[in-house]
Amino acid sequence: MNLPQGFKAASASAGFKAQNRADLGLIISDQPAECAAMFTTNLFKAAPVLVCQEIVNMQKPVRAIIANSGQANACTGEEGLANCRATQKLVADLFDLEVSEILPLSTGVIGAQLKMPLWQAAMPQLKDSLGKVDAEGFTRAFMTTDAFPKFLSSDFKTKQGTIRFTAMAKGAGMICPNMATMLAVVLCDAKVERQTWQAMFKRCVDLSFNRVSVDGDTSTNDTILGLVNAASAIELDAEELVAFEAELLQVLSKLAYMLVKDGEGASKVLHIQVEGAPTEKDAENVARTVGHSQLVKTAMYGCDANWGRIVAAIGRSGITINPENVTLSLCGVVRFEKGQPVNDSAEEKLAMLLKENDIDILINLGSGTAKYNFLASDLGHEYVSLNADYRS
Amino acid sequence: MNLPQGFKAASASAGFKAQNRADLGLIISDQPAECAAMFTTNLFKAAPVLVCQEIVNMQKPVRAIIANSGQANACTGEEGLANCRATQKLVADLFDLEVSEILPLSTGVIGAQLKMPLWQAAMPQLKDSLGKVDAEGFTRAFMTTDAFPKFLSSDFKTKQGTIRFTAMAKGAGMICPNMATMLAVVLCDAKVERQTWQAMFKRCVDLSFNRVSVDGDTSTNDTILGLVNAASAIELDAEELVAFEAELLQVLSKLAYMLVKDGEGASKVLHIQVEGAPTEKDAENVARTVGHSQLVKTAMYGCDANWGRIVAAIGRSGITINPENVTLSLCGVVRFEKGQPVNDSAEEKLAMLLKENDIDILINLGSGTAKYNFLASDLGHEYVSLNADYRS
Repeated sequence: MNLPQGFKAASASAGFKAQNRADLGLIISDQPAECAAMFTTNLFKAAPVLVCQEIVNMQKPVRAIIANSGQANACTGEEGLANCRATQKLVADLFDLEVSEILPLSTGVIGAQLKMPLWQAAMPQLKDSLGKVDAEGFTRAFMTTDAFPKFLSSDFKTKQGTIRFTAMAKGAGMICPNMATMLAVVLCDAKVERQTWQAMFKRCVDLSFNRVSVDGDTSTNDTILGLVNAASAIELDAEELVAFEAELLQVLSKLAYMLVKDGEGASKVLHIQVEGAPTEKDAENVARTVGHSQLVKTAMYGCDANWGRIVAAIGRSGITINPENVTLSLCGVVRFEKGQPVNDSAEEKLAMLLKENDIDILINLGSGTAKYNFLASDLGHEYVSLNADYRS
Repeated sequence: MNLPQGFKAASASAGFKAQNRADLGLIISDQPAECAAMFTTNLFKAAPVLVCQEIVNMQKPVRAIIANSGQANACTGEEGLANCRATQKLVADLFDLEVSEILPLSTGVIGAQLKMPLWQAAMPQLKDSLGKVDAEGFTRAFMTTDAFPKFLSSDFKTKQGTIRFTAMAKGAGMICPNMATMLAVVLCDAKVERQTWQAMFKRCVDLSFNRVSVDGDTSTNDTILGLVNAASAIELDAEELVAFEAELLQVLSKLAYMLVKDGEGASKVLHIQVEGAPTEKDAENVARTVGHSQLVKTAMYGCDANWGRIVAAIGRSGITINPENVTLSLCGVVRFEKGQPVNDSAEEKLAMLLKENDIDILINLGSGTAKYNFLASDLGHEYVSLNADYRS
């Protein structure tokens, strides 16, 4: 799968991980690209997150993304920060770029310092591969325990021609062994003004990535970067910008779905839709409480139409509404209405429907017009196995 | 184990559950008892919770507790409420009591109506057993999937003689299959004024039961009742009341520990102590975030000294402090300090210490003097197995 115009990728097997596979990935934009970004809200931000934030705050165009797996460079103090800057310098020297144009991303084990000699040794390999690596190749370089590489491209027609989005991501939740964790990169060759791009990127991330969860843990390294490099020379008019933003949201939503789909040991994606809430915040609280409930997640894993657990989760979410107004549908079957169970006879049918990989949970609070949608994974034995094993 | 003076217990096998075992328990106080109580904060309160609340709000003495397992009588609407009142009436008629003196407790499957004919048929059996059942017998009658019965007694010496506490509980978290869930009863034969008893009971529950978690799910039926019946005729002076409250806290703390110990499929109890917080609320948020983290819980299950997950959980708890000030000790070993790992060489020793059943997690935020302690269970395969199986 080709990247959008003007972007090239590279990768190398530096040896950060035990297996001999690609663990270093690079994206270079031929011309300066506008950057939008969102970062983890965790108090303990990894060194590459702090450095990326510095760069983004400068509000200047960027040229490259350097991403490694195997080591998170989180909880590593001043030494970790210095190491991160040294990796930027290596890439800057190699490709004749400014340090402040290079965005670093890291994922892997928390608390260990970067293996700098391996970085140094990998540079020639990285240089040789530039332009020979596609979206899948870059994605594989920053994968950790992901079951499959998560990437997609989308072509978007404008009056002046076609624009391409390519989006790549790794990980969902804080994946074993102690991986830290969600990294995503979105590239596009449209010409979009910095402020416009940054504003729409934030809106789209809020509606996609910020509405999924595997285990509720926000890692020290979570980062999503969005680069537009204008290489297509296509500038969108006001009307096209609306469609362009809708397309970006589609791309991000698909990528976010893949993250949940490949959640740690997940077998199902729960599509939780809350409607009829007094406020969007209420709807969000209900959706997140249901999506994070271990009991709901294990029931779904077990294909158990255990709607009482969903009702109980709604009830402890902190909303203050009349519980009599709440209606709950599972896989399209209403099971709870006006404070009582309904359709008891649908149990058998539900047991069949719950064997699907995508499960619809529709909650109408009957107390307003606000709504919120949320994707969550189930919780099964594979999650425990993945996360209980010792790191080594 | 004998109950405090003036309390008698009874039990019956009514047939609410598939197995032929005790599923109906009764406590009667020979003389009116003052009652303190705390209930679930869930919006969907089970019928027996609503009825208990009515009774407690009357602020009058009570005489009996009737508890059933197998059916939660939650999410059952008006019919459920009427059934609950009918069970009170059955007990009132049988023992010549007022309906408003009888506190109902239910636990079991959510969403099914009480099997009233079975209740009716069980009454003679209940009457025959009165006084022949001890604390363990009552506890077994309201157990569901509990691995062991949780009860204890404690004798407390006063100037006038000895007072007895007996405390009994079932369940922790919302136990499979869809059980709902935490019920506890504390009986005491001291003579304590209603307001004094209610105030100290609330304080002690806040410091014990409200500081434990198995899975973070608050059920529709959670109830704790505390009855003092003055049968010892021992009235405590001001000084003794302080020691009496300390004893009550001890009793409740031991019972709460047992609940976590017997958490769904739990193998370990995590003792989470947060110190050096700006406010107690901050300390509580950190403790609860760590205690509810699936990643921390699975790591502890796997005896994995994966301290990075604890640090990450602290970081996403919402506190705003300088992360450099945080110190983390696991099983007495400092592993993270001033933003960096320390004592890397202690990994092997830690792997041994983590095989214990009780795990100490000490977090010093270095940003104040407030603190909070919290007990949580780990998360393992047994939890998933217990909760993923179909209810039938």
